[in-house]
Amino acid sequence: MNLTEKLNRRYASKMMNGTSIDAQKAENILEAIRLAPTSLGLQPFTVFVIKSQEMKEKIFNLAATGQPQIPTCSHLLVFAANRSITSEMLDEYFELFKSTRTLPKEKSDGFRKMLNYILMRSDADNFNWAARQAYIALGFGLVAAAAEDVDSVPIEGFNSTVLDSILELEDKNLNTVCILALGNRDEEKDYNAKLPKVRKSKEKLFVEI
Amino acid sequence: MNLTEKLNRRYASKMMNGTSIDAQKAENILEAIRLAPTSLGLQPFTVFVIKSQEMKEKIFNLAATGQPQIPTCSHLLVFAANRSITSEMLDEYFELFKSTRTLPKEKSDGFRKMLNYILMRSDADNFNWAARQAYIALGFGLVAAAAEDVDSVPIEGFNSTVLDSILELEDKNLNTVCILALGNRDEEKDYNAKLPKVRKSKEKLFVEI
Repeated sequence: MNLTEKLNRRYASKMMNGTSIDAQKAENILEAIRLAPTSLGLQPFTVFVIKSQEMKEKIFNLAATGQPQIPTCSHLLVFAANRSITSEMLDEYFELFKSTRTLPKEKSDGFRKMLNYILMRSDADNFNWAARQAYIALGFGLVAAAAEDVDSVPIEGFNSTVLDSILELEDKNLNTVCILALGNRDEEKDYNAKLPKVRKSKEKLFVEI
Repeated sequence: MNLTEKLNRRYASKMMNGTSIDAQKAENILEAIRLAPTSLGLQPFTVFVIKSQEMKEKIFNLAATGQPQIPTCSHLLVFAANRSITSEMLDEYFELFKSTRTLPKEKSDGFRKMLNYILMRSDADNFNWAARQAYIALGFGLVAAAAEDVDSVPIEGFNSTVLDSILELEDKNLNTVCILALGNRDEEKDYNAKLPKVRKSKEKLFVEI
């Protein structure tokens, strides 16, 4: 089955059955998220991988009561973007960069200097930018789940202030921005599984020039 | 080759060779973008698919001089997110929804009503939200390109005000947010092709709970 067919089969699961997904499949989905490209390569976010049933139920009960996929999923991934970009984060990234790629000192020093332009932007702008980078990774996770025949649903319908508090993010320079629930559909109760996909036509979505 | 291997092979191309990519591959990448899920299914963005060499060069010269991939790529995809969400957009989406899925009138009327909550948010919040949805689709396009062995690069380094003007978006309720260039690498000049990927370790990116 090619990727287009896989993407046509995927849908937003509305109810999962509480069983675990295959560990190797979960690894592959996380690896796709890790490999997602981000602006400058900075990956300005953290992904919480929640398998604890107690934690899933806490999140469902306190931050996302409208989302029954949360307590019934296998892996609940919570994407939290950096609230601000700090000089320390750039230093840490630069160390990673230098340890991975051998560059002449002159060139790499220039790269580190260039990164500073991010510090000139407001925290609000940088947070929105960081959230967008997290959404690229969300896209990678969704496609990888489809490729692995793992059911999934992206979720924005939650109280991010409460979820931040549950995950104790106050002192961590992170804010939750989206959730990706991975699991196995409840064949009986997942009404969305058999509904046709609603998408703009090619003619509406694309403008050829 | 599985998807993880494909994602390990993909990289941000820094120079393409000006040749066209296979038409079917381009179709598959666009279809992945079209199938990307978005919040409520609204797809609040338009994707400009630019094959015109004249237009690519105009964009390079006026809005993105630092990006030599733009005039040398095959397909330049420009993602433009809706600046505001209007009642007319919700009506149009609702018509599409009803024409795709048969629902009892009571249920579908309730769905249309529910959609109105979006109109309570500020335009700035809705634009940021729309941009995030576009970035999910950007992620889908990037993975699909990797799956098709098509070289690609996501680009944020452009002047969006100038690009909006080139694409005549002033009266179209759209603002450009990101670019995806698709093409074939320049084997000699694409210095990034052979460099190792810089990514946070699993231990840094993921927190298991």
